[in-house]
Amino acid sequence: MVKNPAPDATRRSEKSRRAIYAAALALVGEIGYPRTTVEGIAARAGVGKQTIYRWWPAKADVLLEAFLDLGEQAARAAGQETPALPDTGDLAADLKAVLRATVDEFLDPRFDAPARALAAEGLVNEELGRRYVARLLEPQLQRYVDRLRAAREAGAVRPDVDPRIALELFVSPLAQRWLQHTGPISHDYTDTLVDYALYGLAPR
Amino acid sequence: MVKNPAPDATRRSEKSRRAIYAAALALVGEIGYPRTTVEGIAARAGVGKQTIYRWWPAKADVLLEAFLDLGEQAARAAGQETPALPDTGDLAADLKAVLRATVDEFLDPRFDAPARALAAEGLVNEELGRRYVARLLEPQLQRYVDRLRAAREAGAVRPDVDPRIALELFVSPLAQRWLQHTGPISHDYTDTLVDYALYGLAPR
Repeated sequence: MVKNPAPDATRRSEKSRRAIYAAALALVGEIGYPRTTVEGIAARAGVGKQTIYRWWPAKADVLLEAFLDLGEQAARAAGQETPALPDTGDLAADLKAVLRATVDEFLDPRFDAPARALAAEGLVNEELGRRYVARLLEPQLQRYVDRLRAAREAGAVRPDVDPRIALELFVSPLAQRWLQHTGPISHDYTDTLVDYALYGLAPR
Repeated sequence: MVKNPAPDATRRSEKSRRAIYAAALALVGEIGYPRTTVEGIAARAGVGKQTIYRWWPAKADVLLEAFLDLGEQAARAAGQETPALPDTGDLAADLKAVLRATVDEFLDPRFDAPARALAAEGLVNEELGRRYVARLLEPQLQRYVDRLRAAREAGAVRPDVDPRIALELFVSPLAQRWLQHTGPISHDYTDTLVDYALYGLAPR
């Protein structure tokens, strides 16, 4: 109803939004996606549930926005104002730097617990899964597409390589080890993935 | 109690075991892992729940055994008596053949629904997840380790390549697309993964 909110109202809204995001991420990490409710998020955030429904149609939307915000905050904290991957001209070094930062994120419990709960629900709840991929995962993967495309133009990647498939050679192994605990993750590990992917397993 | 069961008892046991496996896979695919119970499996299989507890300590064990059995049945149906990967001397062709068969399996709803439900639960239930990986996933990955090690000895893979990491370049992308619906899966797709992994993204 308030088309031009007073500065005080904007500050109050911003504070509520932050509290709601924090409550949603904490709850889904602690009790899982299925048991997290809009009522529970509202209670923990100290707001009425109508405040949540005014901004988001359902809990999935709150969580996805909270996650997007978490990613943006992490990027700002790391001094990355732009969402693009670094391009120093050295493709291997750039990919290794980004994947090392991703390893650090996966090893941070504040990220791990809610991300894992949301990913798990996305496997069995197809509607949420598709939103999770479209809103969260795919935009991140497109940054690799852009970097690989630039590398292809610079001659560092073979001209016939499809960047959308190529990125999976180093991104998917890390994602699987993280999600399914199929092996330890470390900077050495992701460095190795980049080397294998760029230079191949067969002798040159 | 019966140390040397009569042939009739053995046949009855085998029939019950099959019925229990089928019931467990059907239920977890239909209602998910959390809502599947030993009681529910027993009722659907037409056996008493004590029959299940005589053989397995918990529902996780029933499901993992049912899955292992499903894999063995699929291998027998495909005429693969041995669990080893083919070794025709052509590494790319052998990997492509196995990954094409895996794509077919992932596209089969009888496999997809229970596998997805179990994988999802494994993401949030760490104990089940570790058993799922140790009993089901890792033995399959070890077949790739063996094949890549043979290829390394034959000079088709660089001597410094770690087979346990290398296999993830083609296995993990397929697993992620299947589990998270991050892209379509097909024989063309897995063929491309093998080519990229073996020959690298950088120009030769």
